[in-house]
Amino acid sequence: MPLPDSVLVHAPATLSNLGCGFDVFGLALAAPYDTIRLRRTGAPGVRIRHLDAYNLPTDPARNVAGVALLALLAAVPEAVGFEMEITKGIKPGSGVGSSAASAAGAVVAANALLGNRFSQLELVEFAMAGEALASGARHADNVAPAIFGGFTVVRALEPATDIVALPAPTLWVAVVHPQIEIKTKDARQVLPAAVPLGLAVRQWANVAGLVAGFLTADYGLISRSLDDYIVEPARAPLIPGLAEARRRALAAGALGGGISGSGPSIFMLNRDEPTAHAVAAALGSVFAELGIEFNLYVGTVAPEGARVVAE
Amino acid sequence: MPLPDSVLVHAPATLSNLGCGFDVFGLALAAPYDTIRLRRTGAPGVRIRHLDAYNLPTDPARNVAGVALLALLAAVPEAVGFEMEITKGIKPGSGVGSSAASAAGAVVAANALLGNRFSQLELVEFAMAGEALASGARHADNVAPAIFGGFTVVRALEPATDIVALPAPTLWVAVVHPQIEIKTKDARQVLPAAVPLGLAVRQWANVAGLVAGFLTADYGLISRSLDDYIVEPARAPLIPGLAEARRRALAAGALGGGISGSGPSIFMLNRDEPTAHAVAAALGSVFAELGIEFNLYVGTVAPEGARVVAE
Repeated sequence: MPLPDSVLVHAPATLSNLGCGFDVFGLALAAPYDTIRLRRTGAPGVRIRHLDAYNLPTDPARNVAGVALLALLAAVPEAVGFEMEITKGIKPGSGVGSSAASAAGAVVAANALLGNRFSQLELVEFAMAGEALASGARHADNVAPAIFGGFTVVRALEPATDIVALPAPTLWVAVVHPQIEIKTKDARQVLPAAVPLGLAVRQWANVAGLVAGFLTADYGLISRSLDDYIVEPARAPLIPGLAEARRRALAAGALGGGISGSGPSIFMLNRDEPTAHAVAAALGSVFAELGIEFNLYVGTVAPEGARVVAE
Repeated sequence: MPLPDSVLVHAPATLSNLGCGFDVFGLALAAPYDTIRLRRTGAPGVRIRHLDAYNLPTDPARNVAGVALLALLAAVPEAVGFEMEITKGIKPGSGVGSSAASAAGAVVAANALLGNRFSQLELVEFAMAGEALASGARHADNVAPAIFGGFTVVRALEPATDIVALPAPTLWVAVVHPQIEIKTKDARQVLPAAVPLGLAVRQWANVAGLVAGFLTADYGLISRSLDDYIVEPARAPLIPGLAEARRRALAAGALGGGISGSGPSIFMLNRDEPTAHAVAAALGSVFAELGIEFNLYVGTVAPEGARVVAE
């Protein structure tokens, strides 16, 4: 079967941290997603067009998807290049893995055009080059679920990248994106340099509980294990309304949640769709009262990561 | 069916911490175990006899199993008392849950004599009273596996005790108990008060990996996830030969391991029995060369905790 000359890829939004699992956990969402059209060309290099209004860089060395593609191309011996059209369905800076989705989508598309010669783990490595451009740090907590789908654990980045891809039980996710800006770098600067041992133990007890809850579909355990004792308290002052949003979400039936990635989005996990919609409304009500514009997303966990939807 | 007047219980040794999961993980071992004969009497209170040579206290208020029984009796309205004969198969101070086994065995036996009116979680609470006597801290990382069996996660002690009992895959455990004394209180004093955030993240990434490895029977993942970056480095100076023991155990095929509880025992997990015996021999060789007497144990994980074996 000849390789396609062009593919269309959907690349999912992702939640990183997922409560207690700072820098480690990730979850792929069925919506929103970025759409990437990639064409193989004989001319080496990467050309980028944006089909949205976000005015992102078209210089591949300054574009997260471009940088990811360049990292992939550096591992390809033959002379090949790409033309990429990006339609961002995930608002940049929202904290649901916008840059990771574009980077993941680009390398999944390129891999399809090159006969799928790279493993998913190799694609994570290429996409991390894009993340390094976006946030100043090479991290995989969003690109791992954007590539593998489902629930992912970034067990290690050194000495080798070690991603554990796990299935997630049926969950409905409600996300509110208040229109305030938090830069990832700023969100990193408020983090404590060190944490009391007792608090670290409570945190990794929750980490253990959340993994067990996901793998045994124990919703009560998931609900009890989500809380983040370390990172969220440090970042909470960056997000007005966070405490009240959590309170109303739990009252509306959410299992639990927290800040998505470095924010400002807030996610809540829920057992079913009606609860997720009620929780989304509860989240939105807080920011409506605060006079802060917001977007809401409700959807399931995506069992797959970025994938070819058409040639 | 009338209640028995007397039961014989086996209560297993346990590994706590289990590498990366300080204060959280526990694993029940098929051997060694304590044997407890408990008889119900009409005379309130607890009388203790020891059928071993360890010269442990017979005053119930100063004996871990006695204190656990007294805690249980405080929740029993009727006038009832117990006569207890303890035969310790687990050497006190070895770091494989000796006090937890006696406390767990005592309350499991008492529960059988009282019509099993208490849940396993309640039995953990009673047994923790014994642990508080033994170590100065109310902790559940040994009593949880000693009651539930298998692999346990102490997700929280406050506001309520939350134990997650999980199945373990087939594993063979090799344990060396070098005859050096480490008091639990001393082992606590060397712990750091705070840990760098980056190290805490690496630790909880391993915690996540180990839970996932156990639940998916992924031995490679178990092997990569066992390492403890925080507690073992602090306690290693208390155990001469630890680093060399680990080196030889890994060379002999162990998946990984570390200090059992607060030491001085060292455990290694293995995929099969022949490897476990080779690893035990490798562990023993280190202490033989150091001129330190030692005991070796090789056995499987116990799927059940303390249990009635005869009436």
